[in-house]
Amino acid sequence: MSHTAEIIAVGTELLLGNISNTNAQAISQSLSALGINVFWHTVVGDNPQRLKEALDIARRRADIIITTGGLGPTYDDLTKQTICEAFGQKLVFHPEILEDIRTFYETSLHVPMPENNTQQAELPERGVIFDNPVGTAPGCAFESGGVHVLMLPGPPHEMSTMLRRCAEPYLRSLSHEVIVSRDIMTFGMGESSVEELLRNQMTHMTNPTLATYAKPFEVRLRATAKAPTEEEARAMLDPVEKMVRDTLGDLVYGVDVTGLPEACLELLRARGLTLATAESCTGGMAAQRITAIPGASRVYRGGVVSYWTSVKGDVLQVPREILDTYGPVSEPCARAMAEGARRITGADIAVSVTGAAGPDPDERGVPVGIVYIGLAAPEGTFCRSLDLGRRRRDRIQGLAANHAFDVVRRYLSGLSI
Amino acid sequence: MSHTAEIIAVGTELLLGNISNTNAQAISQSLSALGINVFWHTVVGDNPQRLKEALDIARRRADIIITTGGLGPTYDDLTKQTICEAFGQKLVFHPEILEDIRTFYETSLHVPMPENNTQQAELPERGVIFDNPVGTAPGCAFESGGVHVLMLPGPPHEMSTMLRRCAEPYLRSLSHEVIVSRDIMTFGMGESSVEELLRNQMTHMTNPTLATYAKPFEVRLRATAKAPTEEEARAMLDPVEKMVRDTLGDLVYGVDVTGLPEACLELLRARGLTLATAESCTGGMAAQRITAIPGASRVYRGGVVSYWTSVKGDVLQVPREILDTYGPVSEPCARAMAEGARRITGADIAVSVTGAAGPDPDERGVPVGIVYIGLAAPEGTFCRSLDLGRRRRDRIQGLAANHAFDVVRRYLSGLSI
Repeated sequence: MSHTAEIIAVGTELLLGNISNTNAQAISQSLSALGINVFWHTVVGDNPQRLKEALDIARRRADIIITTGGLGPTYDDLTKQTICEAFGQKLVFHPEILEDIRTFYETSLHVPMPENNTQQAELPERGVIFDNPVGTAPGCAFESGGVHVLMLPGPPHEMSTMLRRCAEPYLRSLSHEVIVSRDIMTFGMGESSVEELLRNQMTHMTNPTLATYAKPFEVRLRATAKAPTEEEARAMLDPVEKMVRDTLGDLVYGVDVTGLPEACLELLRARGLTLATAESCTGGMAAQRITAIPGASRVYRGGVVSYWTSVKGDVLQVPREILDTYGPVSEPCARAMAEGARRITGADIAVSVTGAAGPDPDERGVPVGIVYIGLAAPEGTFCRSLDLGRRRRDRIQGLAANHAFDVVRRYLSGLSI
Repeated sequence: MSHTAEIIAVGTELLLGNISNTNAQAISQSLSALGINVFWHTVVGDNPQRLKEALDIARRRADIIITTGGLGPTYDDLTKQTICEAFGQKLVFHPEILEDIRTFYETSLHVPMPENNTQQAELPERGVIFDNPVGTAPGCAFESGGVHVLMLPGPPHEMSTMLRRCAEPYLRSLSHEVIVSRDIMTFGMGESSVEELLRNQMTHMTNPTLATYAKPFEVRLRATAKAPTEEEARAMLDPVEKMVRDTLGDLVYGVDVTGLPEACLELLRARGLTLATAESCTGGMAAQRITAIPGASRVYRGGVVSYWTSVKGDVLQVPREILDTYGPVSEPCARAMAEGARRITGADIAVSVTGAAGPDPDERGVPVGIVYIGLAAPEGTFCRSLDLGRRRRDRIQGLAANHAFDVVRRYLSGLSI
């Protein structure tokens, strides 16, 4: 039996346009992977009457309702109360949950719990409670008249943690099939070109399926199989991965990794090598992305953000002649930046980025979008020259950082830069 | 008379979670600025029956319906047809619009127009046509039975261009009031505590209103006023801002700025000073956040990501005795890192961050969440010691980076660190 879900986000800040409803996207991806149809997203403000109306509409057209938001401690957080009224549930105070919340405040936030958090410990009488290890608002789920209602918190990191740890297992238990997905990660080609190369195979697939997702600056391919057991589902994915690898070659940089920085980190760890960075136009983004991964310190030594030309000379030891003759946005400067970073940090390899991210051309008139990636290694120094076009500043920075990691992973994989 | 709008996004890719509904956010921002209430967002797939159902619900509860998506040339683009059926409008072929589309293909895309684009030139008999200078699908608007229906394209850059050039003027002509908002930015206290301090004033306000929004690691207060003219609305906000400043004191760090980095950037620019960074546990996040702002190069010289202890010594010149005696996560090290960054970059002031971001304690057993912020300035060196608790790694990093900017802005504002 196939389920149909509606996602209801509760929050006036969404209707005012202060934030985007990224929770609905994350939940939709999960439900799609679990084989649950999503036919509706609804956003409603912190208003009990309109939330009630949304619930009345949703229960007529879906048998799974997932809400986000409105579980906080403040007076306009009314999701639990309104849902319990609509579905004839009683709210019951759970002293042990209040203790969890108090403990979270004291041991994780190191402040005493404000008294208005007490209402977060009131939860529906029946059903299950979803723990919130990264925040104060617990979630919950119950079934009433054939409709499953799941309530998740609004802050995206709390929502996504609870989705993965509690909501997905709850939803999986409603079905008798196992769904397994595999993410095949690619860099170097746009989504529509990747789709064109794979279109013939993709259109004939029903189980497993293969879908493309444009992530920022790269393309993820998700293969998904349904089967009675996990082993059978996994086995069905192997030929799909092979087909994608045969078609896309070394554009594929990894499977089930979060992104290029993690792929680089694993390659460095496997080879026992360390990395350093030297960044100009990306302003520390490459360093930030690799240090966002726990355990980065095993392979990442550090780096320099040489935003001013003087810092390229004084800290990264880029020779004055190079800066004077070719300027800071040039292939010779990218090479010298990487070599300098490698020298001063003692890392085995160092990658550099220099370019014009805009909105204006650089001081010497280098047009927006021109970027050089340098790589200094024991065998010598390499460079990739890019023209990323007149894109928006944040897109040039993000794409340039990804190119830096792509140069590192291609070097470590023995591929041409 | 106050209008009420519903935004309906049409697209199966939204329900699969392939993309986020950023169009709804952009339209909500516009409508909020125009004083039009948005009580609902709905997302529906490329399915005429369910779109019809969404329209039937929307016309009962809103007098402005704005749709995005489904205006393309392919067989599943059914928005215009479905809306015209629902509102009893006829679609009429406009040969001059087809010429515009053909010209766009030939002059902007440099390819001949595919024949299926012909249906994009079919538009409702009554109402107005919205030109699309950056794509092929024109939009349109009409009024029927007291309900205004506006159709905008799905690709965000086409939608936002048409929103600004066509939809906003259309909507402005429907109203006689102006809405003005002011964002009062605070750092140093959680959302529920801020709300508790302001609750008595907030609950009695109707025009202007005041609401709190938790941004990552800080709290934004938005004051909003409605009046016949912009000047009157602005004047109504002044006493609200004064009340917030009187209540929260120097937790308020700015008004109508995007965040702490931008506040620092403006203070640095006003004082003609330059900044450098030295980061350990934040791994380049502070550098990345300030260089994300266009024009950062005027005040930000650069920085060092001294992830390994050796880089703190070799690049930032932190004395070996400090590293040996106190360890890399210590107040003396934070001070020496800031002093080193200031010295090697030549910046007027330098800020440093060192701490244990987790998931494991640092090599010397410093617990997760312990963070030191150093600030080196002409008058001397300052330090802020923090215990951020056992939060998730990315939250410790984000919060520590914000504390670094807070130390900078407090120094530049003559406040205690």
